[in-house]
Amino acid sequence: MRELEERIRNEGTVRAGDVLKVDAFLNHQCDVGLFDRMGSAWAAHFAGKRITKILTIEASGIGIACVAARHFGDAPVVFAKKAQSINLDGDQYTTTVYSFTKQREFPVIVAKKYLNAGDHVLLIDDFLANGKALRGLIDLCMAAGATVEGIGIAVEKGFQGGGDALRAEGYDVDSLAIVESMDPKTGDITFRH
Amino acid sequence: MRELEERIRNEGTVRAGDVLKVDAFLNHQCDVGLFDRMGSAWAAHFAGKRITKILTIEASGIGIACVAARHFGDAPVVFAKKAQSINLDGDQYTTTVYSFTKQREFPVIVAKKYLNAGDHVLLIDDFLANGKALRGLIDLCMAAGATVEGIGIAVEKGFQGGGDALRAEGYDVDSLAIVESMDPKTGDITFRH
Repeated sequence: MRELEERIRNEGTVRAGDVLKVDAFLNHQCDVGLFDRMGSAWAAHFAGKRITKILTIEASGIGIACVAARHFGDAPVVFAKKAQSINLDGDQYTTTVYSFTKQREFPVIVAKKYLNAGDHVLLIDDFLANGKALRGLIDLCMAAGATVEGIGIAVEKGFQGGGDALRAEGYDVDSLAIVESMDPKTGDITFRH
Repeated sequence: MRELEERIRNEGTVRAGDVLKVDAFLNHQCDVGLFDRMGSAWAAHFAGKRITKILTIEASGIGIACVAARHFGDAPVVFAKKAQSINLDGDQYTTTVYSFTKQREFPVIVAKKYLNAGDHVLLIDDFLANGKALRGLIDLCMAAGATVEGIGIAVEKGFQGGGDALRAEGYDVDSLAIVESMDPKTGDITFRH
């Protein structure tokens, strides 16, 4: 998606340790017009698939998933939660995810009643690096007996390999921008096409 | 908003300790068609105000704010973050909020570059109870010199007083459903009109 690549190139910042900051428009400040066009792009890519539910993970995926869902017939968006809260039932699917940005493991949960065996699920997230967060969401879908129809990602860090590993396993991963390399010294970013 | 009241009455669950669970459509599973109609209602209420930014707090406010922002000329949505992350700059406004649902205090931060003196801010959140989360967002706006133009809330627990205290201070609080009382024994919910 050319628009997203240009936003990353113009407003993104490359940091040491493979960190790409795009919080000007993607995950601290949110450009909802861009989110809508991202949703439109995913809807075109996954046009042949039946999507009954969109699953994402808090917090950065939520805004993108909710705006994008409008392009999937207002499919319900469920966001997996990163910590126990007294507002959640005990009847949950649970897994564990290692966060690259937070540098620690944390439990991820979804209430069983919102993820079911009949669901055809589109996973959506802002970033795909090593794929650990997505593996967690896939675990939750498998536990529920739901079908993962596809994976919509805004920014994939291709050089970290998580996306290609998922593709090799047969998952339909549609990343709207794939960063092939980035240089914290010069700030240069190259994209896969 | 009659639709929201009916959803709360039909799908909400009243728990002991003044807990109202509406995670079937508002803050675990998200009905984005409803979010769109909520955004339309807030746009009608705040029609005379100039809104340049929408500020919310992770995680439950994000989806609602992003879908609603489409009714405010795609105003940028900024979500305050609840914990330090290596992906955030050091240059932040910080405050502390006590969470009713998590039953602990936590720091809330927003990057200075995304909240500015010239901003006319609409605060959006899923719940308003004692108002502590909103006080945190107002603190952040005051620190930035931004103007709080209004507050859009999905569900206000009127009996906890946070909304009325804000109104008494002159804030324009538009809650789409105000629960006047609720009974964990019978499940009965009455709304303020």
